[in-house]
Amino acid sequence: MTTTATTLKGQSLDRQTLDAMLRRRLFFTPAFEIYGGVAGLFDYGPPGCSLQANIVDLWRKHFILEEDMLEIDTTVLTPHEVLKTSGHVDKFADWMCKDPKNGDILRADHFVEDVLESRLKGDKEARGEKVEEEDDPKKKKKRKTKTEAVKLDDAVVQEYEEVLAKIDNYNGAELGELIKKYELKNPATGVEPSPPVAFNLMFQTSIGPSSNLAGYLRPETAQGQFLNFAKLLDFNMQQMPFASASIGRSYRNEISPRAGLLRVREFLMAEIEHFVDPEGGKKHHRFPEVDAIELTLLDRHTQLAGKTDVKKMTIGDAVRNKVVDNETLGYFLARIHLFLQKIGVDMSKVRFRQHMQNEMAHYAADCWDAELLTSSGWIECVGCADRSAYDLSVHAKKTGAPLVVRERLDEPRVFEEWQVEIDKKKFGPQFKKDGKTVEAALEATTQEQREKLAKQLADNGELELEVAGVGNGTVKVSKDLVKVEFRKRVENTREYTPNVIEPSFGIGRILYSLIEHVYWNRATEDGGDEARGVLSFPPTVAPTKVLIVPLSANKQFQPFINKISQKLRKIGISARVDSSSATIGKRYSRNDELGTPLGVTIDFQTVQDSTITLRDRDSTKQVRADEDTIVAAIQSLVTGAKEWKDVAAELPAFEGQEVEVTVR
Amino acid sequence: MTTTATTLKGQSLDRQTLDAMLRRRLFFTPAFEIYGGVAGLFDYGPPGCSLQANIVDLWRKHFILEEDMLEIDTTVLTPHEVLKTSGHVDKFADWMCKDPKNGDILRADHFVEDVLESRLKGDKEARGEKVEEEDDPKKKKKRKTKTEAVKLDDAVVQEYEEVLAKIDNYNGAELGELIKKYELKNPATGVEPSPPVAFNLMFQTSIGPSSNLAGYLRPETAQGQFLNFAKLLDFNMQQMPFASASIGRSYRNEISPRAGLLRVREFLMAEIEHFVDPEGGKKHHRFPEVDAIELTLLDRHTQLAGKTDVKKMTIGDAVRNKVVDNETLGYFLARIHLFLQKIGVDMSKVRFRQHMQNEMAHYAADCWDAELLTSSGWIECVGCADRSAYDLSVHAKKTGAPLVVRERLDEPRVFEEWQVEIDKKKFGPQFKKDGKTVEAALEATTQEQREKLAKQLADNGELELEVAGVGNGTVKVSKDLVKVEFRKRVENTREYTPNVIEPSFGIGRILYSLIEHVYWNRATEDGGDEARGVLSFPPTVAPTKVLIVPLSANKQFQPFINKISQKLRKIGISARVDSSSATIGKRYSRNDELGTPLGVTIDFQTVQDSTITLRDRDSTKQVRADEDTIVAAIQSLVTGAKEWKDVAAELPAFEGQEVEVTVR
Repeated sequence: MTTTATTLKGQSLDRQTLDAMLRRRLFFTPAFEIYGGVAGLFDYGPPGCSLQANIVDLWRKHFILEEDMLEIDTTVLTPHEVLKTSGHVDKFADWMCKDPKNGDILRADHFVEDVLESRLKGDKEARGEKVEEEDDPKKKKKRKTKTEAVKLDDAVVQEYEEVLAKIDNYNGAELGELIKKYELKNPATGVEPSPPVAFNLMFQTSIGPSSNLAGYLRPETAQGQFLNFAKLLDFNMQQMPFASASIGRSYRNEISPRAGLLRVREFLMAEIEHFVDPEGGKKHHRFPEVDAIELTLLDRHTQLAGKTDVKKMTIGDAVRNKVVDNETLGYFLARIHLFLQKIGVDMSKVRFRQHMQNEMAHYAADCWDAELLTSSGWIECVGCADRSAYDLSVHAKKTGAPLVVRERLDEPRVFEEWQVEIDKKKFGPQFKKDGKTVEAALEATTQEQREKLAKQLADNGELELEVAGVGNGTVKVSKDLVKVEFRKRVENTREYTPNVIEPSFGIGRILYSLIEHVYWNRATEDGGDEARGVLSFPPTVAPTKVLIVPLSANKQFQPFINKISQKLRKIGISARVDSSSATIGKRYSRNDELGTPLGVTIDFQTVQDSTITLRDRDSTKQVRADEDTIVAAIQSLVTGAKEWKDVAAELPAFEGQEVEVTVR
Repeated sequence: MTTTATTLKGQSLDRQTLDAMLRRRLFFTPAFEIYGGVAGLFDYGPPGCSLQANIVDLWRKHFILEEDMLEIDTTVLTPHEVLKTSGHVDKFADWMCKDPKNGDILRADHFVEDVLESRLKGDKEARGEKVEEEDDPKKKKKRKTKTEAVKLDDAVVQEYEEVLAKIDNYNGAELGELIKKYELKNPATGVEPSPPVAFNLMFQTSIGPSSNLAGYLRPETAQGQFLNFAKLLDFNMQQMPFASASIGRSYRNEISPRAGLLRVREFLMAEIEHFVDPEGGKKHHRFPEVDAIELTLLDRHTQLAGKTDVKKMTIGDAVRNKVVDNETLGYFLARIHLFLQKIGVDMSKVRFRQHMQNEMAHYAADCWDAELLTSSGWIECVGCADRSAYDLSVHAKKTGAPLVVRERLDEPRVFEEWQVEIDKKKFGPQFKKDGKTVEAALEATTQEQREKLAKQLADNGELELEVAGVGNGTVKVSKDLVKVEFRKRVENTREYTPNVIEPSFGIGRILYSLIEHVYWNRATEDGGDEARGVLSFPPTVAPTKVLIVPLSANKQFQPFINKISQKLRKIGISARVDSSSATIGKRYSRNDELGTPLGVTIDFQTVQDSTITLRDRDSTKQVRADEDTIVAAIQSLVTGAKEWKDVAAELPAFEGQEVEVTVR
């Protein structure tokens, strides 16, 4: 497994050069830059926007269409009560410290991480060891701490390393203890920050003109799906299991956004909520199709032991060995793996990491993240959580809505049990305003209590029940108002709250990580002196598929440009014409930076015999043939039916060097 | 022009029945309904979500791809300063009244409209005239006012009608005067509401952990495009004109959301900002392509005269006659017309209405709305505004960013003019802290003033200038500090701020209006007794293209279901299988409600000879052929290459009645 950031060709990845290229080519750009920008907010320019749309399109085909998921589109604005019930108002928070001297606001876990890493680096320097750019790129972030070469005890080094391996597992109090214990100071002031306090990450607003309905911008699309569960089940004609899916923006008011697109305040998510019967081990009928797929796993136990060693394992074995809890969770891990592969992610830079207990969101029963290795370390790009019945249960309890599945039983179930039967007509007049309370208390009794109450009724003609808040706290109910009897109950239907398996994708993080994975530098490779960045996107996700370049601005070329453009547009393939006065080589280079996989040149030979050349971005090899043959080749490359080597084998190579004459 | 709401087949449209169908089939549904819902927030279920995606997809092809627009994706969160500069903080407001008795909050223009309309209706009743459901469906909204049959003077009736025709043209003070003048009372309390006050429609929040950066949810996507103008111009290699485009959500905190999807607080917009040179009459090079397209226009003058009569006119004539200001604006009106036609809107229910002066947004120089006739009246679905150079100018002024185009002139321009030349080295020491102010005052002088100042310098060796706030308000500058001379100036480049033509689409409003336009009732048509709703979407926008129905749950049919599903999926055509136990007729009916244009039946003959039937939703006619022939027919229908009548002419009709046997 690679531990320092590299390009697709194994070159060392220079983040500054890449970032400059991405901004220059307008993949993305800080939002409101002419106003000085706002941390954590980015706009996508044309290539980024198109790349995003292509990833989303593939996602929709890979997940939604493949499994007939029910796609819905819900609102971002969410009233307080919904997120109070879901637990987000109370628990969706990060730990924040404040520097009492200069007012700096620090995210507690990042602060502890930064200072300890800096000390470890200083220790290495003091020992005269070679300090790699970073030991573990997971930790490579914009460091605020200046490293000082101070040697540490061996035991201290080990302790720090163990803390770092499980940094995601500490709560606020524990982070506060670490700050005290290791005397961690804010490097900007030399002062120890205040103890961590929870900072809720939701953006708040108020809805309506009278400002009395508090609301938030959703932190995830999931809640909108849960709230529509009963309607979706109806729409699916009561068939289980099924999945809903949503693609839309979510918002998190990050304490200290950093690392470009990797930690932003507004982002596009694609989330699936797969509803499954909790009985029967959460099997999945398509699991056999993925059984043999090998994943790279980093489980909870390894991390808690202070290690980061991964295991390679088929998902079938992982489920059978209980490394991964159940088939449905496993099925989606494998599907996520296949999706990442399809869009062009470097699979040697992917691992699935299991969450530790304290790290899991408040709703999760188990959770695995697909992490992608980048120059900012291992980045969580997809979460795959088993949310159990948590969300449906809390919303049902709060609203009384029946967020359940009713299933007709093939064989009725028979129960024998103590049952309470209340004569409601007499009950009301007797207890007046307390009627409901007493009724509820009776209904809430256990089987054991009921057995005793039945005996009281039989013996005394009345029962005695403790009901807080009614009279002196003890209520007597006579036998003409209530019966308590041991009876048989037959159930023909079964009612249950489904469990939810949730694969949740951060599209922006995937997009950025993918860019790093497909980026390389042609100059370094060829020994040239000028850096020439290339983005080797697969044709399916590339923002533009074909660059059309006329040899020069000669008017003779225009009809050919128009014809090929129209032909490509008609078959839905996005193309761009570059008839600028730059050299052909320069124009191709510019489009290598945009990741355009194919190029078509129109030259004087085209005018004579209507043939055009087709260039492959990655090899820079060219072939030449008539227009229709080239268009057919383009289509087969873009749909993935063929690879370049197939086309190169079929069509005559074109050896004419890229013309470097400056043309007007 | 129709004046009452009708279905596609001219039947009277029953809004309740349609709404019930749309909710039952989960096109859309009130958000957070199990929590009681929030006014103005809706979720789209699977068919609505798919319909929305198809409309957006066609929009992208019709506008962005067709004209190589630069699509970008910007953030919703927007800092205060940006929207302060754009004018939204001060001016993006509606007029709101409060009932002093019960605290009701009323939108002032809607309130005036409601009460006056109610009085007019009462007048008609008193005169014994036939009261149509609504005289003008523009005014048909959920009426709060109970109508009383009271006869009005003829002059009063005319006055009310004139007020209503220009209701969109009143400002807050004027609405307040109308309320006083006509003694308008809140029907709920019989009390006159408070004078209208401005209520800003933007949702506010704060960004970052220290809560000190105020922000809003964007009310339009436009600002994000303007702020990126310089980068987009670069990306477009300095070529003008060009357009950017954005598809994304925007937010308006409506005072009183109503009418379902037509007035909501969170909505999807698709906006184009076309940047054009203000010199040369804003010509458009593709205008000849649309010149002959006939539009239905309702101009400003007609409305101000208290009328709503439309004129039919080709866009060519409209521009030549100055009804529409310029070619670029006209070009986009025609393109909007073509888009609406393409997605299936009933073009007899479309008009383009010009904004009146007071009605226009603060940034607009001219504006036309494409309005669609629905059961809620004429609904603004697309706005097409000439925003002039307003936005780019204010942002450039505020930030100092050069949001301009620099164009090399073929022939240099020569100016002869009075120029001021300041000796800055001497200027500072002489005027100290006032230096900059005096300098600015000198630079700001007009040609006329400069001629006089030059004379003063020549005559007195110094000039006298009024500079507010410096000394006693008059400053003397001697000739060794400043020269004022008549000189020649040569410009090789021209610098200008582009004007912006902005077509802006409310996707939700278009979606809902389209549904009303394609809705009809088969039962009424056929004389049957049960209402059977049909949505006759064109295949391109229909949520699902093909319904696959096996005759029964017989296992023999399964392989055929799988085969046809896979074939359709492979060519990217969305299909659904309905193997429920309902009758075939019932299953087809259900899918008529979803607007599925085509149906395939698999029956016992299929098992024998592999033929299947294909059904047309609108005519309910069927043909029968082998699987590949039917798949090819489906493809040609879905892409629009053929219509049903072509297919019906080519393939043998299938006369077997829909089987009404109940199957399991």
